[in-house]
Amino acid sequence: MIDQTYGTSLSLLTDLYQLTMGYGYWQNGMHNRRSVFHLFFRQCPFGGQYAIAAGLQTAVEWLRSFEVSQDDVEYLATLQGNDGQSLFSSEFLATLQGLRLSVDIDAVPEGTVVFAHQPLIRVTGPLWQCQWIETALLNIVNFQTLIATKAARVCDAARGDSVLEFGLRRAQGIDGALSASRAAYIGGCVATSNVLAGKIFGIPVKGTHAHSWVMSFDGEIEAFDAYADAMPNNCVFLVDTYDTIEGVKSAIEIGKRLRNTGHEMVGVRLDSGDLAQLSIAARKLLDEAGFPDASIVASNDLDEYAIFKLKTNGAKIAVWGVGTNLVTARDQPALGGVYKLAAIADDEGNWQPKVKLSEQVIKTSTPGIQQVRRYYARDAVTENEMMGDTIYCELIGAPKTPCSESLALPDRFVELLGVTHSRDLLVEVLRGGDQVAELPKLSQIRDYAKQQRGELPADVRSITNNAVYPTGLEIRLAKQKRAMIKAARG
Amino acid sequence: MIDQTYGTSLSLLTDLYQLTMGYGYWQNGMHNRRSVFHLFFRQCPFGGQYAIAAGLQTAVEWLRSFEVSQDDVEYLATLQGNDGQSLFSSEFLATLQGLRLSVDIDAVPEGTVVFAHQPLIRVTGPLWQCQWIETALLNIVNFQTLIATKAARVCDAARGDSVLEFGLRRAQGIDGALSASRAAYIGGCVATSNVLAGKIFGIPVKGTHAHSWVMSFDGEIEAFDAYADAMPNNCVFLVDTYDTIEGVKSAIEIGKRLRNTGHEMVGVRLDSGDLAQLSIAARKLLDEAGFPDASIVASNDLDEYAIFKLKTNGAKIAVWGVGTNLVTARDQPALGGVYKLAAIADDEGNWQPKVKLSEQVIKTSTPGIQQVRRYYARDAVTENEMMGDTIYCELIGAPKTPCSESLALPDRFVELLGVTHSRDLLVEVLRGGDQVAELPKLSQIRDYAKQQRGELPADVRSITNNAVYPTGLEIRLAKQKRAMIKAARG
Repeated sequence: MIDQTYGTSLSLLTDLYQLTMGYGYWQNGMHNRRSVFHLFFRQCPFGGQYAIAAGLQTAVEWLRSFEVSQDDVEYLATLQGNDGQSLFSSEFLATLQGLRLSVDIDAVPEGTVVFAHQPLIRVTGPLWQCQWIETALLNIVNFQTLIATKAARVCDAARGDSVLEFGLRRAQGIDGALSASRAAYIGGCVATSNVLAGKIFGIPVKGTHAHSWVMSFDGEIEAFDAYADAMPNNCVFLVDTYDTIEGVKSAIEIGKRLRNTGHEMVGVRLDSGDLAQLSIAARKLLDEAGFPDASIVASNDLDEYAIFKLKTNGAKIAVWGVGTNLVTARDQPALGGVYKLAAIADDEGNWQPKVKLSEQVIKTSTPGIQQVRRYYARDAVTENEMMGDTIYCELIGAPKTPCSESLALPDRFVELLGVTHSRDLLVEVLRGGDQVAELPKLSQIRDYAKQQRGELPADVRSITNNAVYPTGLEIRLAKQKRAMIKAARG
Repeated sequence: MIDQTYGTSLSLLTDLYQLTMGYGYWQNGMHNRRSVFHLFFRQCPFGGQYAIAAGLQTAVEWLRSFEVSQDDVEYLATLQGNDGQSLFSSEFLATLQGLRLSVDIDAVPEGTVVFAHQPLIRVTGPLWQCQWIETALLNIVNFQTLIATKAARVCDAARGDSVLEFGLRRAQGIDGALSASRAAYIGGCVATSNVLAGKIFGIPVKGTHAHSWVMSFDGEIEAFDAYADAMPNNCVFLVDTYDTIEGVKSAIEIGKRLRNTGHEMVGVRLDSGDLAQLSIAARKLLDEAGFPDASIVASNDLDEYAIFKLKTNGAKIAVWGVGTNLVTARDQPALGGVYKLAAIADDEGNWQPKVKLSEQVIKTSTPGIQQVRRYYARDAVTENEMMGDTIYCELIGAPKTPCSESLALPDRFVELLGVTHSRDLLVEVLRGGDQVAELPKLSQIRDYAKQQRGELPADVRSITNNAVYPTGLEIRLAKQKRAMIKAARG
């Protein structure tokens, strides 16, 4: 939808250094040298042990709509260096005009459970193009993966209750809201309050009334009555404008009148105070008045931890409205995804693996053309349970058994592990800039993400337990990486 | 630029409950009743004592481009209630088609220093329109105000050094990046890495090369040399791909070659390690080698606190690249701005002030049609220094002296305070939906914000001191609010 949502060319959605490097490569005749980059993160967000990959569809739309416009070129022509001269030569700018992408993209499908250091996207193509697209890919995938993961955690804490995403008003900008609604839906939310997200993405939308509705009438009961008259099929009464328990009583009164006209109130919403105690009291009042099916919706600064605590305290809340903390991922508002060169073709076209050193071991990149193999056990209880992942290099070859650095298991233990089958996570998406695989619909992505979370060991998925999932490098790739680091350090 | 940036109607960028309430008001014949809402926040972000208002231009573009399209109406017609029937009647939907706004907007100019509880935007107009636009106004103003404030704090910590905004790759979505670049520039950043933000907003853009450039060559010196050849007028060498001090030596070697061709290297960039120590060592090497004007640029997880500490530790850094922590406002990724009904016209068209109660005193809203009066002292040292603010109600009348609740000063002290003049902050922007005042250019907003920060008492502006700025309600307004709370509580 990105090409419809934005009316301008988004090709310049990149860091300037991607273009200055592109210019440098072009001058050195290296710009079309084939190279491989991987997009991955080094640490799962929120202190958790997994993430839900998201954003691929948006990224592919950006890649496919990429075309350097005359406007773009005219703007670039205005940029100057420290001598007041143009940054880019007119020959280079002429080369850019009309440029479209010819990259190959392999990626894990949206909704896939992923772990640290695993490529979410693998880009193969001309060096300057791979660089140019780095920033937009990171922007899109970092944020949507972050929010899909947050939503999954919130939905897990809600233990099957419905979670509504209410974050538009405090999201980080317009797309910070739209992308968040999309990713939250992938992660498990059932609906959004954001009508435009509903229109663009087909996400169900929910909403009834605010405090201002109640304040616009002489009293609460008049306000509820007027709402029920106007919209008898969408009555969730917000009960805390003046006094929550009195508000529940008003809702019951109007709920009875509504029932006499052949309609049922959907429920009441609590938006302040002690949500555990108030929900228990409200549930009791509703049940005693003959409204056992009226839902209690709650909102007010919720996240997975607040929901977990409310559940522990016996809250009678059936629907959770989660806003700011979900769409901004308040406790960690950025996923630190990176995009690293891993191989480059030499003059003869042979792949040369590349590694970036760092004083921090975790920041040393992995060389090669990477793929992720995931091992499963099938048993009577779960159809599939994820057992461990291995990152391997396609130049070296696929592993025969799930022996990786981190699994660190000799072959003879594989049988004990109970591994019955495996699959590779990265699939072909673009070849030479053309889309070669149809991407699933958003609702399919959401179903797949749910299935994926079901295959994740419960202790890895838990927001309180945090068991580590076995994942690492295939043993020959690990050896090559060590050798390259040693060689680079001299 | 919003109407150019987005290709679709953004009228539905709102919460569904705004539309269901609108439908309710329409059915009750109340939808065109004039009402007043204020957009404000209750607490300054980041534990600080002020904020920089931002986002008005974007908000005005959204308001002016607002028009309910046929597409929008067709989408709304698909929404259903809990009985499977349409949520909205076809008569109502016909009323919406082609709807444009007729609201009045008064607002504080972008770049103004603002405080808790002060209206940043005052909306007057038909009740349903005021509600409809709430969510987009909050989305836009909350985020840009948050980031402009963060940028001001970061720039203050940098004590006049240049701050570059590098956040695109980890910003919250595409607009999370574009809006952040705009707001960061208002707050004091000198440039962005985001080329599209440069093109759309005219913000200066900066960038040279990444680690991958160095890795694409056989060695660091070859990489720097190739870059200098390609772009002799834009040389900031990134020196930490392998070993930072060796990198600085390589940069010096190439800097000398560059000088022989009539160009000067701009500087070096540090992106990892102990930035204080490394910058001191790099500065020494550069000075000794005859490059006293080569700047040291630093990046890597910076924010105002990190910069303050580095400065304290004697870092020789002249240019600060700040990314994720700035554009996501990592320590507080959302400003809790709200939008509250404060008055509504009765059947005779007389204004009825409105108040929303809450068990939390800070959440009780202020009634009336509000304006902010700011008092200044002019003296030999500062042309203007802000002394205190009073929120007053235009229905009650302007204060004669700066006696407010929080100032709590009898008239006779005004002279002692040294107040020489005052001004009202909210200015007319839209009348009946039409723009009646030209908005300043982005560079003018940035200059004004800088001037505003200069007028702020130093101890209020400080990121370490946090003195409270005197602000409160005009005394008659405060009395009215108390009386209304008492009456509402019965």
